[in-house]
Amino acid sequence: MTDLQTTFDAVPGFRAAGVACGLKKAPGALDLALIAADTPCVAAGVFTTNYVKAAPVLLDQERLATNASGIRAVVINAGVANACTGAQGMKDAEQTAAVVAGEIGGAPGDVLMMSTGVIGVPLPLDKIAQGVKAAAAALRPDGWPDAAQAIMTTDTRPKMAAVKVQSNGGSYTVAGIAKGAGMIAPNMATMLCVVVTDAALEPPALQTALIAAATASFNQIVVDGDMSTNDTVLLLANGASGVRVEADEALWAFRDALRQVCVALAKAIVRDGEGVTRFLTLRVTGAPDVRSARRVANTIATSPLVKTAFYGGDANWGRILAAAGRAGVPLEADKLALWFAPGEEGQDDGLQLVAGGAPTDYAEAAATDIVRQPAVRVRLDLGLGDAEATVWTCDLSHDYVTINGSYRS
Amino acid sequence: MTDLQTTFDAVPGFRAAGVACGLKKAPGALDLALIAADTPCVAAGVFTTNYVKAAPVLLDQERLATNASGIRAVVINAGVANACTGAQGMKDAEQTAAVVAGEIGGAPGDVLMMSTGVIGVPLPLDKIAQGVKAAAAALRPDGWPDAAQAIMTTDTRPKMAAVKVQSNGGSYTVAGIAKGAGMIAPNMATMLCVVVTDAALEPPALQTALIAAATASFNQIVVDGDMSTNDTVLLLANGASGVRVEADEALWAFRDALRQVCVALAKAIVRDGEGVTRFLTLRVTGAPDVRSARRVANTIATSPLVKTAFYGGDANWGRILAAAGRAGVPLEADKLALWFAPGEEGQDDGLQLVAGGAPTDYAEAAATDIVRQPAVRVRLDLGLGDAEATVWTCDLSHDYVTINGSYRS
Repeated sequence: MTDLQTTFDAVPGFRAAGVACGLKKAPGALDLALIAADTPCVAAGVFTTNYVKAAPVLLDQERLATNASGIRAVVINAGVANACTGAQGMKDAEQTAAVVAGEIGGAPGDVLMMSTGVIGVPLPLDKIAQGVKAAAAALRPDGWPDAAQAIMTTDTRPKMAAVKVQSNGGSYTVAGIAKGAGMIAPNMATMLCVVVTDAALEPPALQTALIAAATASFNQIVVDGDMSTNDTVLLLANGASGVRVEADEALWAFRDALRQVCVALAKAIVRDGEGVTRFLTLRVTGAPDVRSARRVANTIATSPLVKTAFYGGDANWGRILAAAGRAGVPLEADKLALWFAPGEEGQDDGLQLVAGGAPTDYAEAAATDIVRQPAVRVRLDLGLGDAEATVWTCDLSHDYVTINGSYRS
Repeated sequence: MTDLQTTFDAVPGFRAAGVACGLKKAPGALDLALIAADTPCVAAGVFTTNYVKAAPVLLDQERLATNASGIRAVVINAGVANACTGAQGMKDAEQTAAVVAGEIGGAPGDVLMMSTGVIGVPLPLDKIAQGVKAAAAALRPDGWPDAAQAIMTTDTRPKMAAVKVQSNGGSYTVAGIAKGAGMIAPNMATMLCVVVTDAALEPPALQTALIAAATASFNQIVVDGDMSTNDTVLLLANGASGVRVEADEALWAFRDALRQVCVALAKAIVRDGEGVTRFLTLRVTGAPDVRSARRVANTIATSPLVKTAFYGGDANWGRILAAAGRAGVPLEADKLALWFAPGEEGQDDGLQLVAGGAPTDYAEAAATDIVRQPAVRVRLDLGLGDAEATVWTCDLSHDYVTINGSYRS
């Protein structure tokens, strides 16, 4: 496997485009992306677990259930979420897919859709149809940066990642684009993402690999704990490389490459979270089981008091313990231990602030130095078992409030 | 029953004081409160369900379990929470209670304690002992406003409430003080509160009445969803009025008065929440059961996206539906209905924005007018049953971030 790239030009057999069709307020801003495959693809998806699902989510779930080996395109619009739009919303999504099929060939049922933006507003079909036509005309093997740009909402930069895999004497690419920024919660699929590969896989292997990769990436990030009505991760495999990924080592190599791409995109989403000033790697160890570890980690990561303390550069570790204690996992307060370390990754635990549930004699200045770094690692040990979980999260800043207090205006 | 008062002078048989002993940074700020009864009281308490509990919480729980009819005093300090302080924290709490007993008479075991402030810092016993002595000397029947002032942390104003009850030919008072502001979550006991009465009740009746009142008041408020290590509500009954409250009508009148006082204090806590600019009454109806209704209401009330939209005066109702959908309660999106109305209380539902899960043809300007009021009522109907729940909550503002980004500095 070659190193992870945070940008990429092309994946054989796929073309992409991003165009402006007037969905975003800023004139000329790219707001519609189209990704098309030259041949039918095997496809997999993971979706929001929100009970309020947008029309495109329902459309994709339906199509993947019946047509997982015949997908030809994914169309994505920003600006309007097409959620809470009733029966009309479903018709509008179907109509958009039909326009795409008319432009690139294939049946309407071969097209998947994603939408992101304001809830409760109908899709402006005229603009969308115009956009689809322009995008179809603009499709290029190297159109990915435009597509990544077009799906952004409050994101400040496009998110791309790719790896190249040597396998079975051949090679293939796994590459993806994503958007995120807000409404990022610790639950299945928390943003929009399309990953494509020119490897060849059967539908069940592809779906299993995607679930595993999402669990280890998009399900480990938290910006604000809100989960969207539209969250979707799609994975398309067109087999253009001629490399068949079926079992054993080849399958593990594929899964590893997919996980690497998804983790890179997930971390990029946190780093570009709304108003983020600090990136936090939060590791909960010593838990009785993984579910408990994740629950404690997610409760800490969504705590407004923890997040504002990190924003303020205040080593207020008491808030971390208080948040852990309300996660619903039976803790023993006098077994808790806590460490802070600078940086995003590393094996060392750093400065120990708490042992046996009470503060060590650490120097406050040393703790403050660490929490004022742009990236901070926190390890909380529960002292109850050997399960652990990691969450990537961020602080809660004035800018988050500004961005979300005026999102629609 | 006479009308609710938001201030009160005295309750027969109780004396109170608030003094400055140097725990708060501001010079001369009141930071230690003492409440003493002339005779032993029957006492009840509800406490944080956080697994990380402060020493005073453990102390009170122990004493109420063995000495619920012999309580003589409650001492409360602000500035230092005495949480995550290990065995020393427990000794310090016991020592403080012993100093109180030495000053006012009775045994150390007759004294309850509450603390609020920074976690992980030991109680400065010298200052505390000095404060207790000054407070004991300052005890007066009309010392309640000073006590209410002394227990404040980020509160901007003291919180008091009282009602007078005519019962069994006599009359008695139920009166309380509370502090809140941040770390307010939808779980048992979410702040500090002391309620006293000169009615006479047995311990089980008093405890049952307190649990019922807390469920209908302090457990229905949300500021930020964080639950403290110190949350405590104590209720002391000294029987000085000669009115015995034992069963039937007299008991219901007492419970109603207690609920009224607790609701008034709970709402005062939300109104004075950290950085609050808008008070929200959130009512979820049509739920399959009360537990589901509360769960949906609490998820909406803790959603940063919902709270920032209200701060911005943006009628972004899609975020309310999106939050409801991730509460873990199976919803049917096309049965949801939503109304906004101005004001804190009222029977009318106001403007209907959503019917059958999709927007009505409401005028955006009318919705905006409502959400820009200082108090807004939101009703979400799930269309699934006839259970309901109400939560009082608030917006999330720049000032919340400012306050909590620099709490310790």
